[in-house]
Order: sequence, then C-alpha cells, then structure tokens
Amino acid sequence: MTPSSLPRVMTEPLVRMALLEDLGRAGDLTTDAIVPSGHIATTLLVARQPGVVAGLDLARLAFQLIDPAIEVQITHDDGAIIAPGDVIASITGPARGILTAERVALNFLCRLSGIASATAHLVAAVQDHRAKIVCTRKTTPGLRAIEKYAVRIGGGGNHRFGLDDAVLIKDNHVAIAGSVTEALKRAKRGVGHLVKIELEVDTLDQLREALDQGVDAVLLDNMNPATLAEAVAMVAGRAVTEASGRITPATAPSIAATGVDLISIGWLTHSVAILDIGLDFKN
Amino acid sequence: MTPSSLPRVMTEPLVRMALLEDLGRAGDLTTDAIVPSGHIATTLLVARQPGVVAGLDLARLAFQLIDPAIEVQITHDDGAIIAPGDVIASITGPARGILTAERVALNFLCRLSGIASATAHLVAAVQDHRAKIVCTRKTTPGLRAIEKYAVRIGGGGNHRFGLDDAVLIKDNHVAIAGSVTEALKRAKRGVGHLVKIELEVDTLDQLREALDQGVDAVLLDNMNPATLAEAVAMVAGRAVTEASGRITPATAPSIAATGVDLISIGWLTHSVAILDIGLDFKN
Amino acid sequence: MTPSSLPRVMTEPLVRMALLEDLGRAGDLTTDAIVPSGHIATTLLVARQPGVVAGLDLARLAFQLIDPAIEVQITHDDGAIIAPGDVIASITGPARGILTAERVALNFLCRLSGIASATAHLVAAVQDHRAKIVCTRKTTPGLRAIEKYAVRIGGGGNHRFGLDDAVLIKDNHVAIAGSVTEALKRAKRGVGHLVKIELEVDTLDQLREALDQGVDAVLLDNMNPATLAEAVAMVAGRAVTEASGRITPATAPSIAATGVDLISIGWLTHSVAILDIGLDFKN
Amino acid sequence: MTPSSLPRVMTEPLVRMALLEDLGRAGDLTTDAIVPSGHIATTLLVARQPGVVAGLDLARLAFQLIDPAIEVQITHDDGAIIAPGDVIASITGPARGILTAERVALNFLCRLSGIASATAHLVAAVQDHRAKIVCTRKTTPGLRAIEKYAVRIGGGGNHRFGLDDAVLIKDNHVAIAGSVTEALKRAKRGVGHLVKIELEVDTLDQLREALDQGVDAVLLDNMNPATLAEAVAMVAGRAVTEASGRITPATAPSIAATGVDLISIGWLTHSVAILDIGLDFKN
Amino acid sequence: MTPSSLPRVMTEPLVRMALLEDLGRAGDLTTDAIVPSGHIATTLLVARQPGVVAGLDLARLAFQLIDPAIEVQITHDDGAIIAPGDVIASITGPARGILTAERVALNFLCRLSGIASATAHLVAAVQDHRAKIVCTRKTTPGLRAIEKYAVRIGGGGNHRFGLDDAVLIKDNHVAIAGSVTEALKRAKRGVGHLVKIELEVDTLDQLREALDQGVDAVLLDNMNPATLAEAVAMVAGRAVTEASGRITPATAPSIAATGVDLISIGWLTHSVAILDIGLDFKN
Amino acid sequence: MTPSSLPRVMTEPLVRMALLEDLGRAGDLTTDAIVPSGHIATTLLVARQPGVVAGLDLARLAFQLIDPAIEVQITHDDGAIIAPGDVIASITGPARGILTAERVALNFLCRLSGIASATAHLVAAVQDHRAKIVCTRKTTPGLRAIEKYAVRIGGGGNHRFGLDDAVLIKDNHVAIAGSVTEALKRAKRGVGHLVKIELEVDTLDQLREALDQGVDAVLLDNMNPATLAEAVAMVAGRAVTEASGRITPATAPSIAATGVDLISIGWLTHSVAILDIGLDFKN
Repeated sequence: MTPSSLPRVMTEPLVRMALLEDLGRAGDLTTDAIVPSGHIATTLLVARQPGVVAGLDLARLAFQLIDPAIEVQITHDDGAIIAPGDVIASITGPARGILTAERVALNFLCRLSGIASATAHLVAAVQDHRAKIVCTRKTTPGLRAIEKYAVRIGGGGNHRFGLDDAVLIKDNHVAIAGSVTEALKRAKRGVGHLVKIELEVDTLDQLREALDQGVDAVLLDNMNPATLAEAVAMVAGRAVTEASGRITPATAPSIAATGVDLISIGWLTHSVAILDIGLDFKN
Repeated sequence: MTPSSLPRVMTEPLVRMALLEDLGRAGDLTTDAIVPSGHIATTLLVARQPGVVAGLDLARLAFQLIDPAIEVQITHDDGAIIAPGDVIASITGPARGILTAERVALNFLCRLSGIASATAHLVAAVQDHRAKIVCTRKTTPGLRAIEKYAVRIGGGGNHRFGLDDAVLIKDNHVAIAGSVTEALKRAKRGVGHLVKIELEVDTLDQLREALDQGVDAVLLDNMNPATLAEAVAMVAGRAVTEASGRITPATAPSIAATGVDLISIGWLTHSVAILDIGLDFKN
Repeated sequence: MTPSSLPRVMTEPLVRMALLEDLGRAGDLTTDAIVPSGHIATTLLVARQPGVVAGLDLARLAFQLIDPAIEVQITHDDGAIIAPGDVIASITGPARGILTAERVALNFLCRLSGIASATAHLVAAVQDHRAKIVCTRKTTPGLRAIEKYAVRIGGGGNHRFGLDDAVLIKDNHVAIAGSVTEALKRAKRGVGHLVKIELEVDTLDQLREALDQGVDAVLLDNMNPATLAEAVAMVAGRAVTEASGRITPATAPSIAATGVDLISIGWLTHSVAILDIGLDFKN
Repeated sequence: MTPSSLPRVMTEPLVRMALLEDLGRAGDLTTDAIVPSGHIATTLLVARQPGVVAGLDLARLAFQLIDPAIEVQITHDDGAIIAPGDVIASITGPARGILTAERVALNFLCRLSGIASATAHLVAAVQDHRAKIVCTRKTTPGLRAIEKYAVRIGGGGNHRFGLDDAVLIKDNHVAIAGSVTEALKRAKRGVGHLVKIELEVDTLDQLREALDQGVDAVLLDNMNPATLAEAVAMVAGRAVTEASGRITPATAPSIAATGVDLISIGWLTHSVAILDIGLDFKN
Repeated sequence: MTPSSLPRVMTEPLVRMALLEDLGRAGDLTTDAIVPSGHIATTLLVARQPGVVAGLDLARLAFQLIDPAIEVQITHDDGAIIAPGDVIASITGPARGILTAERVALNFLCRLSGIASATAHLVAAVQDHRAKIVCTRKTTPGLRAIEKYAVRIGGGGNHRFGLDDAVLIKDNHVAIAGSVTEALKRAKRGVGHLVKIELEVDTLDQLREALDQGVDAVLLDNMNPATLAEAVAMVAGRAVTEASGRITPATAPSIAATGVDLISIGWLTHSVAILDIGLDFKN
Repeated sequence: MTPSSLPRVMTEPLVRMALLEDLGRAGDLTTDAIVPSGHIATTLLVARQPGVVAGLDLARLAFQLIDPAIEVQITHDDGAIIAPGDVIASITGPARGILTAERVALNFLCRLSGIASATAHLVAAVQDHRAKIVCTRKTTPGLRAIEKYAVRIGGGGNHRFGLDDAVLIKDNHVAIAGSVTEALKRAKRGVGHLVKIELEVDTLDQLREALDQGVDAVLLDNMNPATLAEAVAMVAGRAVTEASGRITPATAPSIAATGVDLISIGWLTHSVAILDIGLDFKN
C-alpha cells in the first residue's frame, strides 16, 4: 500500500478547529505578555523516542495558520524511521507564533506518530508471514481520516472507514437474521456491486456455512492459533481471512503463523501511546 | 471538586459529528440490509474491565440522535466504580438504530471511561497525601472539554483548559525574557486580575527567584523526590506546587510524599487505554 | 436491495441549510404580512404526474423545522407508485408555517421523486434481463447521499459514493500507469481488503488483459450491443460487467439484452427532470 | 444586465463542501494507488456540446483547493458561446490533483453551463420581443446563488432570491386574505419601501382588481396567448407583466409576442440537463 | 408593518453560538461548584427601565437549550410597552440552568429591547407626520436579522437587509459612473424586475436629474429642513423620499415636518444603549 | 497590559460570516451594475471623530477576502489616538471590491474603535489613581473576543472571558449556598488551582466574612464612594477590590479615589457608541 498525503482541504478544518480550541477567547496570554512581537526563533522538532513519524502536514499547518511567516523545513518526512535525538524538522520564524502553535502541532504529530510507530512495530513482528496489520473503526471521534492515514504510514492497512463502505456482518446481525446463510443472502441483495461483504464467525461451523454461501472475507474473532490454522485451511483461499481479538506484538507472530491474511487491531487507534517528540529552541 | 454534567449544547455537536463521520454518505449498509425495521431489541452496556464509568451522556445521545425511540436506562452513572460484568445501562428500542449507533456510543464511552479510570487509579495511589492529580493540555484535538470532564469524573482536577485561561511560563518564555524575574514582571503587567500565573522551574535557584517575585503556582518539572521535597520546603506555602514529568501509578506515591500540591500527568489524556465496555444483546 | 430511510442526523443539516437559504435575513415577507398567525390550514401534497415518490422525510422536516405544530400524515410513502391526482400526504397546521416551508419541501421532494421515477422507468425497461440500473458520482454538489437514496427508492442500485469507497481505474489512470496490467497491480497493492476494484475498458484487448490480472468489475464504456455481448461472453462470470455511455430508456433494453450485470447512468442524477408534485390548500 | 463574478467568499464554501463530499474519509484511492506524485499532466476542458459556459471560477477553485500547484488557463470565459471541440481551459500540474478534483470541477461546470445554455436558448427564442427570460425559486437546495448566477450568464434575469427580498402574493395568500384587494393592502402595510410587490392572477377580473389597488408586477399564471395579450393591454404599462407556466423554447415566441415583460421558467433550474464538458489528457 | 416572529430555524444557531461562547471549554464553574443540581428556583425577568421589550424568543431558547426542564412564562410579549418593575416573564426550573443561561439570555434581550425602545421613541417623536423610522445596514456583524426584527417590533421599518436586495446608489457610485443619469441607466439595465432602485442625492440639481430619469426612492443626505422641504416639493410623489444624517429624537420632528416619507437612522443599531432588564430570584 | 493582535485564525471566521451576511445570495447589486470591473480607486479611511482606533486587522481582512488585489496601507495602527480628519489607512485597488467590502469593514472598525475610545476616555479619567478600567461579560453575542480585545487596545483590562475561566460568586449563588462562607467553601473545593475566585458583596458584613474565608477578589457592587473607601480599608490588600455599578466618566474619578483596584463597566461593550470613521474616495 502506497501511503499518500491527505489533501489540505481535509486536514485544514481539523487544524483550525484544534487551534481555536486552544486559543479560546483571549489567545495565548503567556506568550503575548512575555515575548516581543519581533523576536525571531529557530526551533527543532526532535524525537525523544524511536519510532515512525506521521502527521507533519498537520503540524506545519498549525504553525502556518497562526503565522504564515513561520517556515517549516522537514528533514524526516512522514514514514521516516526516527531515533531519539533525530531532528524531524526545523521551524523558524516569529517566536510568538511558534510558541502559540506548539502544543496543537505536537498534539497532532505525537498522536499520529504514536499510531504509525505502533503499527510499524506490529508489521515488523509479522514480517515473516503474509499477514497484514489493519486498524478498525475504534478511532477517536473526529480523527478517523487522519488516524487511518497514520496506520498506512506505519505500514499497515485500513479496514472499513465507516458503516457505509463495506458490509461487516457481526454476531448480532446473524442472530437477528436467524442464520449465517440468511444474513449473507440479505446482505447480497441489499448492497451494490462495489461493496465487499465480510462476516464475523465464532465457530468453524459458521465458517463452513459462510463459505458455502460465498463471502469476500471472514473475521475470525477471538480464535486461538490452532483453531485459526484450521479455519485458514478450511477457507483455502476462497475468502480473505482476518484474525482479531486483543492481539499484541507478543502474540501477533503466532497468529500470523496460522496463515491468516489480516490481523486487525483496535488498540492501534483507541489505546495507543503517543510518540514523544519535543520542540527545542536553538536560540 | 464536584464533577458536573456538561450541558447538552456542548456535547451534541460532538456526537453529531462522530455519527456523521461513521455514517458517511450511505449510512449503515450492513444493518439496513439485514435487520428488519420493526425489530426491537434489548441490549446492555456491560463492563469488561474494572474501572470508573464516564461519558454516558454522550453515549445516550448517540443512540437517541439516530432514533429517538431508543430508551436508555442508566444503572451506573458517570463516576460509578464498575467491575467486570456490571451492567452500566440498558438500551431498548429498534435494533437498527442500536446497531447503527453502537460504535460511536462506545468510542466515546470507552475513551472517557478509560481516562476516568486511569485518573481514579492515580488518585488512589496518592490518597495518603495532599497531592491532587491533574491533567494537561495534551488532549485529543477537538475533545478537550470532554476529556477534562472525564478527569474530573475520575476524581482528578483540571489544569489550564487553553492558552487563554491562565499564564504558564515555560523555559522558553524565561529564556526569551532573559530571567525568571523579568518574565514574571511582564506577565503581571500583561494579564487581568482573574488570571493566575504559574511558572515552570528547573532549578531551586529559579524557584527562589520566582518566590521572591511572587507567583501563584510553580511547576517543578522532572525533579526527583529529594529535590521536590526541598522545593516544597522552600516554597513553604507561598505558592501552589506542581510536580510533573512522566509520573506513573508506581512513582506517584513517592512524588506525593514530598508534599507537593499537584501532580500533573499528560498521559492521562494523550496515551491512556480505553476501558473495555461492550454492548450485549439480550434478545 | 432494501431501501432504507436515511437517519435524521444526515438529512436535518440539509433541510436547515435549505430553509435558511430561502428565508434569508428577513423571513417570509409575503406570508408574514398577509396570513394571520392563528390561521390553520389543511393542505395536500398531490401528484401532478405519474411516478415514484421519494424524499418525504425531508419534506416533513422542512415543515416541522419551521413550525413543530404542523402535522404531516403520509398516505403514499417513499417508494410508492403514484398517479396524477394521488394524495401523497396531508399537511395540517398553522398556514404561515406551511406557506413558508412549502417551496423548500417541494424542492427536495420533486427532485428526489424525479430521480426515483426516472430510475423506476429504466428498471422497468430492463425487467426482462439481469441488468441492474445504477447511478454514478455525477451528482449535485452537496446532495449525493440523498440523490443516491432516491435511486435506491426507484429500484436502482448505487455505484461508488465517492473517491474513497472503491477503486475505479479510468482511461487516464491506465495511460499514466502504462498498461492495464500495471494499473491493476498498483491498485491491488494500494488498497485494503474490503475495497473492490473496477476497471474501465475501451477495447476487448484491454478486457482480456484485465481478466488475466483479475478484477472485481469492468466498466464497458460506450460499446455497442454487439461488442458488449462479446465482452460479456469473454468475461464469463469472472467479473461484474457494467455498461455505460448515454443509455436511455429507449436503448436500455438492447443493452440489457447483452447480458451485462449493470447499466450505469449519469443523467439519472445530473440531468433528470423533477416529478411535479403540488401543494393544494383545502381550506 | 451585466453578469458579474461571484466573490470567492461566496463560492469557496460550496467547492470545499463538494470536495469533502467526494473525498470522504480516505481520499482518492484510485489515483493515490496508481499515479506517481511527481507526474505532471496537461489537460484540456473541452466542450462536447454547443452551449454557453458558466462556472469556471468554481471549477478552477476545485483544482486549486486540491493542489495550489495546478494552473488553470481559461480560453473561453463564463458567458462564451462554445461549440463541440472548443477548448474552454487548459489545466496543467500534478496529475494526482487534476484527477482527484476532476469530477467536482465538472459537476459544477456542467450543471451551471447547462443552465446558462438553456437560458441562452430561450433568450434567443424571444429575441424579437421585449420579453426577458427569468428563473424562479425552484432551485437546487444549497446552490441558489450559483444557479441564479448561471441564468444571468446565459442572458436571463433573476426573479426573487428568497422569501425575503420581494413580496409575491400567490393564490393561497389571496384566498386567506379574502380578496386581491385585501391581500395587497396587507402587503403594502407590511413591508418596507424598497420591497416590490408582485401578485399572481388567474383571471382578468383579479388583474383589474390588482391594478386598481396598484401593484409593482403581476404574475399571469398559465394563461394562453390570447388571454395574455388581453392582460398586457389591460395593464397598459402600469405594472410589470410576467407570464409563467411550463413555457418551452417552442412556446416561448408566441408567449413573448403577447408583449409580456417577463417569462419565468422553473425548469431552467429544476429540470435542466447539464452541458457536456469533458477533461481530456494531452499527455 | 406587522411584526412577525423569526422562525426558530433562524434564531437557534445564534443562541447556540452565544451559549458556547460563554460556556467555553469548562462550563459554568461557579454554578457547578455552588448550586446543587436538584435546586429549583423561580425567577422573574423584570424591567429596570421603561421601554419596549424585544427578543423573548431568543431569551427563552437560551434557557431551554441549557436545560429543557426550565419553563418560561411570558407576561409581556415582544412589542409590549414596559415600565420599571414590570415582570416580563417568569422562569422556573433547575437553578443551575437558569444561572448558567442568564447572561446570554439577557445579552440578547437587553440589546434587542434597547433597539426596539429607541425605535419606539423616535416613532413617537414623529407621530404627527407621515414619516416612518427605518434602520440601515450599520448593524452588528452576525446579528442583522434580529436587530432589524427589533426595529420592526419598535414600530419602525427596515431599509435594505444587504447588498443584494435593493440598489442604493451612493455618491461614489455616481462619481464612478460620471453622472446621476448614467448611474441610473446602468442600474436599471443591471437588475431584475423585483429590485427597487434608490439614489443618494446631495443637491437639488442631482435630485432633478434623478427624477427625470425615474427612480423608486431618493436618499436626501444631510440636508437641512428647508432644503428637505424643497426636495419633497420637487419630488411631488414621484419617488419615496428618505432623509438621513445623524437625526435624533430632538431633531426628528422638524425633519418629519418637511413631509419626507422615511427617516433612516444608523445609530438605532450601531450605537444604541441596551434596555436594562434584570433577572430576580424569588426563592 | 500589552495589547496583542488576535491571530487571523480567530478573526477570519467572523469577517467571512459578516461578508456573507451582507452579500446574501446575489452579491452587491449596485456596484456590479454600475462600476466597471477594471476601475481602480484610491480611498482613505478617515476619522470623523477623535478617539482611539481598533479593529484594523478585521477591516483589512474584509477588503482582502473580497478581492486579494486590494492593498491596505495602515498609517495609524490599533491603539493610535486619532483626531478628526486623520487618515487611518489608505485602501487601493479595484473599486468594485472596495465598495462591496466597505460597510462590513466599517461595521467592525467603528464598533471596536468606539469601545477602545470609550475605554481610553475612562482610563484618562482615573489616571491619577491606581484603578484599572475593565469590561464585563455583557458583550455582543459572537463578538466577545474582539470586543475584549478593543478594551485592551483602549488601555483597559479584561474581566472574565466566560463562565469557565474564573469563579464569580454573585448574590444568587450566595443565597442558594446559604452564606458567603459556605459559597466560598464550595467554590474552593470545586475548582482547579489556576482558577481565581471573586465574590460579589453588597455589605461590609459580607465583605468581612469573605476576607475571613480568603478570596482572590471582591466585587463591591453599587456602593457609594464612602462605603467603597471603607471597604478598601477593610480589605487592606488581602484581595483585589473591584467597584461596579453604572460608573461613568463623570463618576469614575470619585470612585477611583477610594483606592479600588478595578472599576468594571458593562456599558463599555453593551451600550457604547461607535467611533465615526468614513471611507473617502480620492479618485
């Protein structure tokens, strides 16, 4: 998967919203009181932890929407692997604007880099297998587009972006429909030719029923490696296989070794730690 | 601190935004195709982990903005301590709406409960001391108001809500001003009578200089317990003392034992894990 | 495909926007000057042409957002086939509000009913064949979700909802990639497991190349029936086949007779005439 | 009437909204996967039908909001008469951005050019008479300002822009007021000195009553040419005369020959076909 | 002129915006800390000055958007003449919500009542003459619709609502056109049949030229009463006459005595004092 | 207090909103009809009254958002003291854009300059005393940030920006709490370490009770100078003292002479007259 920049038309509203949230009604009281308007500073975005950087477009926008005179020179672009001490970018311009935008820029950058880094960690853990790491819809309200972008930057892939771009039949849907077969029939009648259908299965019996009906992908939820391997064998390439259920870097290799196509991981977006990146003043 | 509900006028725009983000342009393809519009379901929000619940107003709004016919009965309100298996609320009504709103409701509820739970954990860790746990401005873009609310629900307090409701003089401000003394003088000249002034100090010399000038609060950044204790003694009640710097439940007691008034913790909002809460169908 | 109501959270912002566009800064000058505020009226939405009704939820919202005292009783719901003179709904309440909301309600209702009716006309024209009628992304800016809903109400299906929910490789993409093969390879590398890939082909050679690579769907653009039939035979069920290119109710049967799976029609949303529906006052 | 450009402050929100509607949460999957970010293309907006071009400002904005590096050179500006094959503009720059913005740019341009072209067609049909072609409030929700602009570009004029910029007394207002006389009296009392008053009349008796009271304009609804001519004679210049009621290019000349001042046509905005304009890649 | 309520669809966004502006990110710190959530209060909106009340719909919305349990009973509706001590409305419900919404409710109510009261004062000053008091476009950014509504409530009329609902040719337009005659010719060519044209004249020569061309209204700017009377005589009913230029309650009678139709007053909206209305707690 | 520019990210949404409010759906009918698009004009913003200028950033934005080709050269920046006839700025560029933006630019500039000028007048009136002039939350809905900015430009200070950045305990809070002591205790428990607490007192007994409890500031409401002086003596520096209650330039000196720290004045923002500034065309 080729990661791609998000068009500014998508990111700018988020950055404006975050700046207004931080500026409130009075702006940056501290900086306005202490820093002379003519003071020029050179500062560096410096990694404090190893990881993968993501979100520089948003960080740059934060600075430049506060003051277009601020120049941002990027030395490690989104996707770069960084070590503690690495300079990611240098930010030069009026010190007032740099200080005022700093927190918003870092809030975006550290969060997205945290997601990219955790993704990369998992990707590395399964590199000997075919399994791809993907995220879920368990994202931060309002930030889904950029969080899923960060997963791509980290080398992962994206599951559904919303309720409307694919069918994912879960246990409760099956229960209401009455059977896997009936649920799949209704789904196939109900959606367009460009919509893929995935079904969550809890047992191999359900899996067999799904394969008999035909399905694009199966979500094998909370199965242990042995059962997963059996499921993959049963599928035999007739559907994409996805494993899920609290998988960690420690457990991912054994899951991947079962031959599943995808490992989906909710905590990549709902419980990930930021990557610590700081802004250091050179003068 | 008495936690208070956020007025709906503040939360409703967030919930609408999150629902539209998830519904996209075609709505819930899966549910619309499989679940009959007349199907009524009774479901339960059930804790999967121990913790403190927060965010029920937002979860309820998610269901009711999708379908006002959905009834939400809360059995453990915000602030309640919950154990795995506890029923937090029952949600009854058209199954379509419940399934469509489920993910958005849980994304808010699990995140805010995660913050409240981590806060409560830290609060308990320092309960033998005067120190209060507070959060920072390292919040999720767009969610600051509700994340800080969750900290209050967990028994913590709030630091600044933005750049505009208090002065916090950091190292770079001091460097530009030339000295702690000059920075404090400028700040006092520059802000109104209802704005408090806090100063970050890295050394006891800086602290002495700040106390000589007079300051409402001092942020003692990355000091070890011994130095912190010395600082607290030097302050001698003349200012509020705040410790910060990657403090965890493990290290918090020794920090609190120094006598500081506040322990501020960025990861409470930027790197916290969700509290796992699920939606179980009863029929 | 089961048509489904759009959640109010999706339609309400559109109706509010349209009402504000019509009310401007002074509201309904005519009605406010002439109609007493206590005057109650009973009015009927009456079909002036035969067709399929669509958009009643939006029409109802228009009336009720202007005055919640207005009651809307629907007698022919979305999807109903209506003849001239049929009463679609009765609207009773303060005459001021009914007159003020009338134009906005009808602008939504007549447009969406026009789309549904034209769709139903095409669906009927191909009813002896397997071909399904689908719309495109040539929709009215801002109204895509509701226009595609109207197509579903008319018995049609939906193609992509946007640039982000499926891959559609067009001639210019192929030209830039260098070949159909290369374009397909890049697409498969670039997107997730729930994203289908469709390719536009202009010749049978391109089609063969696409089938060799494997593709979910092929868009057979501007081919005559003979070539289309040949293409369908060549595909032999290995991909969904879609015909496009200025197809009308007159030409649709011969296109459908070729055995294609889908007929996509841009003018359903970009050049369709409204269905004439009027609001008649009974008293 | 001198057509004038709409200020960007009015058009930019529409173009941003349309781009976000098309980009969804993941952006242009196809182009991002297939087209290298450095690929530069030269493309041409080419007329496929004869007509009048309108909406180039919005098309240009669509390209430049996606990528400011895209240059748009216009060769036939808004209002130009174009023939099939005419190049309207050349668009040069990064191919990714051109492909991503293409559909939104064309959706605006083709719709507005369709309106301008249909208007010009009608204007030509009545060119031997005094009658001016005008549009109505039967516009697309959200697009009224730009659709009425397109009518002006086609040589037509604009009727009311909303409920608040003029009085238009319709049959139901008259019925509620009790008489034409009473309706006009209330209207004159009710509105300001810069608001004109128009009254819809169905009979010559109503017309006589309106003229006795004094009125700025009369809407002669669904009258045949003979009655219209009689009405125009009765008015004798004391009010602006407007004919309406499903008038087409075929019937417009005979309507215009009655001497009416205005012919208003709802289908110009509610049921017009687009003008087909395509984007051709030169390399 | 019959004053009319503004539809809630127009006022609700303003009240929501004002509440969010006041609540900020943390809500009402004082009330949340001090007032128990179950405390019920009965309060009264009481006039502190004589005047005309306007804006009760917005005040009521402020309370009910904060807490729908708050009941508002209006005893003196918009347009009522009130004396100091008069109870305008009683507000009963949870004290928290009443206190939180109080300032926003009063900010709207006192401002709009101030405008209505000043208008009524001027209307009374000219009651022996034909002159009507009207406002201008010198309104508060964002509040034009409600400020012009308040003028109507006070018995005045409205001038243009914006740049787009009438033509007002000012001195600079005339200067650029070259003459009054040329400016009027261009305006008549340029606008639709429902748009009135007014021209500002500084001299009687300009007035004569305008009347020769024909014009709907003339703005007689900064003329003394003698010149105004001469102008009115020259017009002789051929156009609406409007006087302007820093007219006060003291000077208005002599201006009105000249026989002008309208007196327009910018300070009604740009420099008016509020009407003092307070919220008194009964328990 | 150092006045500081508001970041454009805060002002631009206000100026865009005001321009759209004035342009409506058809733009500037007058200018578009009369002024040729190529006409270039040089114009001057000229003071008609003495005062202090404020709001030039917003005025400049109004012109440049309508047409970026308009150049604005400022000769008297925000905070400058101006006399009648002084040129504040010269505006050069396309005459159309200048005329279209004129009213919005002046509406912002005259209002904010009016506030700054009235503030400066009061500041001068108390210059021999320690008292600082501050504003309140009685601001125009939507404009709080810029109105409080104007107060700073005039030499004044800001009280609370909203309900959430400080505690202000008023009489009704005290009544509900039962006593000053209880109200203060609840407030101190309820809010964070960076939130100051102010209490409104009506009597010296209440003041004594507040001082016993400790409080950051006391609002001495509607006290006469003698009582105020007694209060200030009783406080003896233990809290900031603030006087309020319809204080005017005439009464301010005697109030200030009591030694209070602050004089807060609601009418600075709710009832202030604009400063008259005009736009003169040079050619």
